[in-house]
Amino acid sequence: MIDRPIHVRIVSPITARNFRPPAVLEALGGLGLKVSGSQIEEGPASIESEFETAICAPDTIRRIVEAEREGVDAVVIDCMADPALRAAREMVRIPVIGPSQAAMHVAAMLGHRFSVVTVMRRLRAQFENAAALHGLASRMASVRSVDIPVLALEDDLDATQRLLVEQARLAVEKDGAEAVIFGCTGLLGCAGAVRAGLLAGGIDIPVIDPIPNAVHIAAALARSNLTHSALTYPPPPEKDVAGFEALRASLAAAAQ
Amino acid sequence: MIDRPIHVRIVSPITARNFRPPAVLEALGGLGLKVSGSQIEEGPASIESEFETAICAPDTIRRIVEAEREGVDAVVIDCMADPALRAAREMVRIPVIGPSQAAMHVAAMLGHRFSVVTVMRRLRAQFENAAALHGLASRMASVRSVDIPVLALEDDLDATQRLLVEQARLAVEKDGAEAVIFGCTGLLGCAGAVRAGLLAGGIDIPVIDPIPNAVHIAAALARSNLTHSALTYPPPPEKDVAGFEALRASLAAAAQ
Amino acid sequence: MIDRPIHVRIVSPITARNFRPPAVLEALGGLGLKVSGSQIEEGPASIESEFETAICAPDTIRRIVEAEREGVDAVVIDCMADPALRAAREMVRIPVIGPSQAAMHVAAMLGHRFSVVTVMRRLRAQFENAAALHGLASRMASVRSVDIPVLALEDDLDATQRLLVEQARLAVEKDGAEAVIFGCTGLLGCAGAVRAGLLAGGIDIPVIDPIPNAVHIAAALARSNLTHSALTYPPPPEKDVAGFEALRASLAAAAQ
Amino acid sequence: MIDRPIHVRIVSPITARNFRPPAVLEALGGLGLKVSGSQIEEGPASIESEFETAICAPDTIRRIVEAEREGVDAVVIDCMADPALRAAREMVRIPVIGPSQAAMHVAAMLGHRFSVVTVMRRLRAQFENAAALHGLASRMASVRSVDIPVLALEDDLDATQRLLVEQARLAVEKDGAEAVIFGCTGLLGCAGAVRAGLLAGGIDIPVIDPIPNAVHIAAALARSNLTHSALTYPPPPEKDVAGFEALRASLAAAAQ
Amino acid sequence: MIDRPIHVRIVSPITARNFRPPAVLEALGGLGLKVSGSQIEEGPASIESEFETAICAPDTIRRIVEAEREGVDAVVIDCMADPALRAAREMVRIPVIGPSQAAMHVAAMLGHRFSVVTVMRRLRAQFENAAALHGLASRMASVRSVDIPVLALEDDLDATQRLLVEQARLAVEKDGAEAVIFGCTGLLGCAGAVRAGLLAGGIDIPVIDPIPNAVHIAAALARSNLTHSALTYPPPPEKDVAGFEALRASLAAAAQ
Amino acid sequence: MIDRPIHVRIVSPITARNFRPPAVLEALGGLGLKVSGSQIEEGPASIESEFETAICAPDTIRRIVEAEREGVDAVVIDCMADPALRAAREMVRIPVIGPSQAAMHVAAMLGHRFSVVTVMRRLRAQFENAAALHGLASRMASVRSVDIPVLALEDDLDATQRLLVEQARLAVEKDGAEAVIFGCTGLLGCAGAVRAGLLAGGIDIPVIDPIPNAVHIAAALARSNLTHSALTYPPPPEKDVAGFEALRASLAAAAQ
Repeated sequence: MIDRPIHVRIVSPITARNFRPPAVLEALGGLGLKVSGSQIEEGPASIESEFETAICAPDTIRRIVEAEREGVDAVVIDCMADPALRAAREMVRIPVIGPSQAAMHVAAMLGHRFSVVTVMRRLRAQFENAAALHGLASRMASVRSVDIPVLALEDDLDATQRLLVEQARLAVEKDGAEAVIFGCTGLLGCAGAVRAGLLAGGIDIPVIDPIPNAVHIAAALARSNLTHSALTYPPPPEKDVAGFEALRASLAAAAQ
Repeated sequence: MIDRPIHVRIVSPITARNFRPPAVLEALGGLGLKVSGSQIEEGPASIESEFETAICAPDTIRRIVEAEREGVDAVVIDCMADPALRAAREMVRIPVIGPSQAAMHVAAMLGHRFSVVTVMRRLRAQFENAAALHGLASRMASVRSVDIPVLALEDDLDATQRLLVEQARLAVEKDGAEAVIFGCTGLLGCAGAVRAGLLAGGIDIPVIDPIPNAVHIAAALARSNLTHSALTYPPPPEKDVAGFEALRASLAAAAQ
Repeated sequence: MIDRPIHVRIVSPITARNFRPPAVLEALGGLGLKVSGSQIEEGPASIESEFETAICAPDTIRRIVEAEREGVDAVVIDCMADPALRAAREMVRIPVIGPSQAAMHVAAMLGHRFSVVTVMRRLRAQFENAAALHGLASRMASVRSVDIPVLALEDDLDATQRLLVEQARLAVEKDGAEAVIFGCTGLLGCAGAVRAGLLAGGIDIPVIDPIPNAVHIAAALARSNLTHSALTYPPPPEKDVAGFEALRASLAAAAQ
Repeated sequence: MIDRPIHVRIVSPITARNFRPPAVLEALGGLGLKVSGSQIEEGPASIESEFETAICAPDTIRRIVEAEREGVDAVVIDCMADPALRAAREMVRIPVIGPSQAAMHVAAMLGHRFSVVTVMRRLRAQFENAAALHGLASRMASVRSVDIPVLALEDDLDATQRLLVEQARLAVEKDGAEAVIFGCTGLLGCAGAVRAGLLAGGIDIPVIDPIPNAVHIAAALARSNLTHSALTYPPPPEKDVAGFEALRASLAAAAQ
Repeated sequence: MIDRPIHVRIVSPITARNFRPPAVLEALGGLGLKVSGSQIEEGPASIESEFETAICAPDTIRRIVEAEREGVDAVVIDCMADPALRAAREMVRIPVIGPSQAAMHVAAMLGHRFSVVTVMRRLRAQFENAAALHGLASRMASVRSVDIPVLALEDDLDATQRLLVEQARLAVEKDGAEAVIFGCTGLLGCAGAVRAGLLAGGIDIPVIDPIPNAVHIAAALARSNLTHSALTYPPPPEKDVAGFEALRASLAAAAQ
Repeated sequence: MIDRPIHVRIVSPITARNFRPPAVLEALGGLGLKVSGSQIEEGPASIESEFETAICAPDTIRRIVEAEREGVDAVVIDCMADPALRAAREMVRIPVIGPSQAAMHVAAMLGHRFSVVTVMRRLRAQFENAAALHGLASRMASVRSVDIPVLALEDDLDATQRLLVEQARLAVEKDGAEAVIFGCTGLLGCAGAVRAGLLAGGIDIPVIDPIPNAVHIAAALARSNLTHSALTYPPPPEKDVAGFEALRASLAAAAQ
């Protein structure tokens, strides 16, 4: 029996400010669950490409190492590219959860096939590759997009949500989806409206908001005393690294 | 923010008495989580075959319908065959979790490949079929067994745990497993000892105890306001059923 | 050389009366082949859901155990959900054939990809899961439906057949099917008309009527002296069962 | 109801004489089933390579075209490489069955996984490729060999059968097979002895003798009025062919 | 360091004359690369079916054996059915490349999914089977066709190219292709025009012309001192062959 | 016809000096082929983990952008983790080749299944994930390791080569490999000795040295005028990046 609250840290791997007000993250907590946030300082304003996924990784690892050192119970990376997920798991022993991986596994548990509805068409290969890596390619129905850049999602939130409903509906009717995942954590908070929009059209399926889902899965793992395998994610051998001073300082502090 | 405790019901689909003392199940609860149990009255003493998986289903469905009617938030079926999982989901709208399905998805999140260590060799096809259905065949390394019947697992618990450690070690060294799932819910409570046994041999991997894992995943879904897809699991059409009086009475009560 | 007729029993796992007149089943026989029927007494009027598939199982197993005791050579279960197939195989050593499994394997032998044309949209996941279990997911093109309930299929047989032709044609033209399987054994006898309808549109593909196909495959196995593997389907261990008196009586009679 | 005997022709795609005495093939018939044989005149003495599989094809097609012209109901090709199967199906409308394809589908119906026990190690890739083409790769446990050339199988039949039992046993114990297929039609007639040998070791699994199995499957298709899809196997366009006089003469005769 | 030119032989497995003027093949050479051609004498005028693929094989093998004897470094078979590829590899130790296999692997390297745009609809199953054999089924988006016979492709080259652009565009927009392969070597030389046509519509993807691609891959293998595995493609055992005098003479000459 | 030499740049993503003497790389050139090298300045000394794969990426991208700006025809990344492959392809239009991806596709062309023989056991998941991403999981037999760190491979080259032969032999005999890939580019130059060692034991299979193979494949693509798909690898949208000054300077220079 676990009688203390679980503390989940959400690490935002982008440098755009004001995108994740702390109050929004803290509101994800509740009875038995504390949620806090941190953000990287070196990397892209937002993530919509493999290039940006690559360059956000070093500082994301740093923030995750710091989270473990601060005593949090689990970490969620705040991007559907799951950047630095595998690398960060080599550096800490608390659970590190990628919202894309967690959402795909939960969707596969709840419905026959799932679709991802994301921001840009260009992310399709990235999501299909992720499904293949997770072993879930046979359960993915499609990847669809509303063609709005991440940082513009909230410019007209009603329009964004209407487009999400429309693409989710097409995923069901054309592609055979029976569950839907938002393909961008920037859509945090839209699940209720999108599910209502689908229900209004007679479609009753799970609409997975990846960050709340990942937070609760991360807490579930912590409560079950589970973390990633050290055989899959062993710590790297000690060796010289050139550059990355802030990251190396965090690693040195953690090693003490 | 969810500020009331989540109530998870564990439905035991076997008729053997004294196998699941209520105190054991209640002890799985904690801050923000209440756990209770119920058990079927018609069906097999224990489940080690497809035949027993089939005949436990009607009364298991009854207990799950009753659980929803009583207001619990989610249900876990207490058997690694996940009996009646798909049928029960058609009858209720609260999340119904099969411990095998939940364990496989969590194992796939935490390590590269997982093995199931179960009671009897004869269950191998059943677990491999389950992995294929969940889309996770590529992530399953092997199914191994200790060859002890379910109802004899606790006769010599030390011996059972030594055999579990041995088969888990072989799963890692011969089959490439990087995480392990117990293939019988009768092994509840053995994960700590088995993980310690593996660590003593230098193997640091997740050992998934399916019932606690399923309970925390079920609670996570309830906290995220998610349940199974009504498109995958629509309620059956109304029609005549002969026999199954107790089940029909429960369904009639639920329909009011 | 086998010089006696093979006797195949068709077990109908539904309780609706007058759905399978004995003469229809007997007419499937011929030179070297005798066909007879039996029907369950406890269970659903018809099968269109996972729930109904579950509750028809116990009495279906009973009828199959009785068939073996009566000396028939092989059994075909009269429903495309293949209910109780795996459980029944554990209880008898004569071949037990599911018409869905047999039809998918035959379709895969005869054409590049096959589609299932069934009664209700809701059965799609069930057929896709079956194809995955049989290892044939890569050979299934699609599952399509005419949206007529089982017990209404014969209300307007011409309309039913026109809809079957239309969905089969779309399976070929839109989904890439090169063979078609009826997804409900209630469509028995429609293959000739549907194949003629497709040929009229220039489409020359196999149209598999699942019951005749399963009967002839079952007889082929009996003639080859083959039955299911006792390693995959071992008899269950002896143990207490509560309820299911009629089934237990049949099992006890068979065990003598 | 089919009240005339079905006539199945076995076409032997090798030029070695005395390998298939007509009486052996005719003995495969029985009540409602007539079996006859024919043999090619140009090609290899036996088939143990891709090269031999390729050069036996033209005359095998000729013999199959002739069989249809003679009015037989179905053809079985007498080699586990299924040589010319796809090409021959383009030239005739009676069912043409490859014994390898038929055996793999039947094995997949009867047990969880199957192994092929064949003559030479070099055939492994060929059988694994065949399983991939049939969509059954996930159901194949292994390919094992006794390392005896085809034409020497009967030199010491007892030794051959002992080696078959040994390899089948290893397939079960090491590779997870739950059914076994002979990987050479030259082993015709050995199934009874091999199954007995396995049973003596406590292993009760199907042992599939490919030629009898293919003959009965071919007859089942003929009785069900089914043949291969003309969409998958359309007749080739008319065009000039240089060489292959005997084949061209048969085609010209068939076209009249 | 390789300081002599590599010599690649293109073997045309069809008997139509004037289809491959030597100058066209020689023009594929360049600095460090010599290209020459040969053609079969027995077989079909062109290849559009499994039947034609089968009967072109014996003489194609002969031409490949001769090429090795003449000292060329690598062979490319000039047909997208890759006829005789596996058989020929058993007979020689220089690399033998099928243009379909090489194009699919290169397409999979360059883009997320690829489509094949070919001449006739009937070739779809053949290409899907090839992708399955190569292990690349998950990377193939679709097979589309322009419905022009091989020997008529150049009758109106502009029309052919317009149809290729149209089908390639549909492959991208409807099927999710991100690279395109020509599904007939008779389209040699059209890649530039088709790529320009796609670019004019804003689609910037690789358009793979299979013969130049295969020639450069063959040369790359020769430069890397790599050839096919003798374990996958061992030479056939010595044995009697009836017929095929020209082929046997070439083999005898090569064996000296 | 291409009558100028192709220039391939090998980018070394590690900071250890003296690991890749320029003369070794230049010696990979030859008639029609020039090879040059460059190396990163920020990142790990060597790469044996997901962490090191992540932190070498930014400077590797910089070196690849510079290579295109200098006019080279194609780039090969000098590490079997294929670090930054997908990100770099978004930033340039010349072909960028990962030696792991190229080796797996070539191995799949040349033999039935391939194994990777690498330095450390911990890389197994990484290679299996790569095979899954490339669509080649079904063609990979195993990943084996000699358990020598990258920077110690040349300490006792004879011992390293003996261990490579031993693991390659086990891959063939135990795992079913029919081709072998070195799983570390630090093994450059060992293929001849390892192939000779295998031949001495009667095993005649391709032994793929990833860097020469990738260089010749890169040159082949350049000669065929092919590069990666802009639909799979579109340039990232313009946006703010914090940090990474050297990389941003290179990108700015390239954009002019």
